[in-house]
Amino acid sequence: MNTTFLYKSDPMRGRQWAEVFGRRRPDIDFRIWPDIGDAAQVRFLAAWVPPDDIAERFPNLEVLFSSGAGVDQFDFAALPAALPVVRMVEPGIVRGMVEYVTHAVLGLHRDMPQYRRQQNEGRWQPLPVRPAAERRVGVLGLGSLGQAVLAQLVALGFDCAGWSRSRHAVEGVQCHAGADELPAFLARTDILVCLLPLTDSTRGFLDAKLFSMLPIGAGLVHVGRGPHLVERDFLEALASGQIGDAVLDVTDPEPLPPAHAFWRHPRIQLTPHIASMTQPLSAAEAVLDNLRRFEAGEPMVGGVDRAKGY
Amino acid sequence: MNTTFLYKSDPMRGRQWAEVFGRRRPDIDFRIWPDIGDAAQVRFLAAWVPPDDIAERFPNLEVLFSSGAGVDQFDFAALPAALPVVRMVEPGIVRGMVEYVTHAVLGLHRDMPQYRRQQNEGRWQPLPVRPAAERRVGVLGLGSLGQAVLAQLVALGFDCAGWSRSRHAVEGVQCHAGADELPAFLARTDILVCLLPLTDSTRGFLDAKLFSMLPIGAGLVHVGRGPHLVERDFLEALASGQIGDAVLDVTDPEPLPPAHAFWRHPRIQLTPHIASMTQPLSAAEAVLDNLRRFEAGEPMVGGVDRAKGY
Repeated sequence: MNTTFLYKSDPMRGRQWAEVFGRRRPDIDFRIWPDIGDAAQVRFLAAWVPPDDIAERFPNLEVLFSSGAGVDQFDFAALPAALPVVRMVEPGIVRGMVEYVTHAVLGLHRDMPQYRRQQNEGRWQPLPVRPAAERRVGVLGLGSLGQAVLAQLVALGFDCAGWSRSRHAVEGVQCHAGADELPAFLARTDILVCLLPLTDSTRGFLDAKLFSMLPIGAGLVHVGRGPHLVERDFLEALASGQIGDAVLDVTDPEPLPPAHAFWRHPRIQLTPHIASMTQPLSAAEAVLDNLRRFEAGEPMVGGVDRAKGY
Repeated sequence: MNTTFLYKSDPMRGRQWAEVFGRRRPDIDFRIWPDIGDAAQVRFLAAWVPPDDIAERFPNLEVLFSSGAGVDQFDFAALPAALPVVRMVEPGIVRGMVEYVTHAVLGLHRDMPQYRRQQNEGRWQPLPVRPAAERRVGVLGLGSLGQAVLAQLVALGFDCAGWSRSRHAVEGVQCHAGADELPAFLARTDILVCLLPLTDSTRGFLDAKLFSMLPIGAGLVHVGRGPHLVERDFLEALASGQIGDAVLDVTDPEPLPPAHAFWRHPRIQLTPHIASMTQPLSAAEAVLDNLRRFEAGEPMVGGVDRAKGY
């Protein structure tokens, strides 16, 4: 019996996956939703949103791959308990995130929002330059994305720290772990970058209490998920000056409705969830590499711990 | 006789130089303009704009240091012919320029000007992401700043080329030299960074002819000097779409008058000549290092070739 792999996500990207699979693993029967053929043959599924009846429809499913970086769009309760779930870890996602966050942090560091306001007023007014070594950047979340972002920020000479739930070590970075060490991390952070996964314990993480522990006028770069941010608390922190300028790539909901307050806020720079996008070719290669690992009985890259939610 | 060093530039920075000199070289008599004391004792002068009567007033001057990165503000004809002139080469200038250009190139690469326009319209519209490896960045000028900027852009994965008058070699960069190789350099450049020195042969370098050799819609990051850019040609290139978006840190004149067309142009991002500023402490250290070299009969870092003008 052939190995059957079903793809259920953007169909244009699906055709690019099909090309890579066809070239690298012609033995695999690669199908694109909704052309699923005999569902009982499907052993592997890559999806952004899996079908509701996944357990009944695909009785022989062996692995569920997310077609994007997150798995917070999955309803774990609706998935067979023993089904392995794998996040997408591929170099395209990492590079995109490094580019976006580096741009955002350099922009806040070099007062670009203020220069943009001055430009609107036709005002030529140089501001003092602070060396990167005296600018304290803090990254929430020390997974593969957080670590790659920090490596670039360290190379630019920023004074970097990181925080995550469990203990990590990252070269050149003061690493903090757990709730006890969060206040110290926040107190030393001039520019905060949120790269947390979205789980029950991180929903609403960016709230008034957290903002109040940052130095006054801190910058925020939010590239996690929209529901991390408590919208009212955030707008109040901007109004009070507790947060200086913010760069948001994620909102709740997405797309953000045209009348939403974030669009025209003078201290918010907003992009439509584009910080990091899976590159179809490298994503397909990453999934093929994980298939090889699975077939060889090795652990897959990006395997999800359902108890943690990521 | 004591070594007498005269500083003629921003007096607040001068006091920071005085501290560094006092700590590192207490044997030097460090003076800040206008307190020049006995002018005949002055052997070294650091200035942004030297006095017009420099030759008559300081008969024993041995070296003229520029207090900033450029020397285009010097009138070489008014300087004693044999007087060595030294540019400022110090890590603060380099780091500032790397930060600014990295931010500007990443912004153009990731369509930030277009996202800003969409934000103004309340429009959530993701644009396709192009990998950095497929984005061709070209840097005009391969001195210490150009090389440092390219090292960072290469590390981010951009497809990088450089152009300079004389032949250079930079790791990971296709280097072009001289007028003959300029068209090929421009034809492959999606984002052009100008880091040329200002000389008689580079004044007006960024003109209609040059713009016409770039791919349609190319981006421009101008961090050289205002007079490199032919203003009318530039505005026409923006109007025709030959240039897509531009980031300007330098203008002619500076400050730019409030009514100037650049301020409110929707495809120009303008900053008030802040890309790179000499950091007083590291600048003083760099000059002290050059003094040591001079006293030891070694070549100084940043020595100017007057025939070339930089």
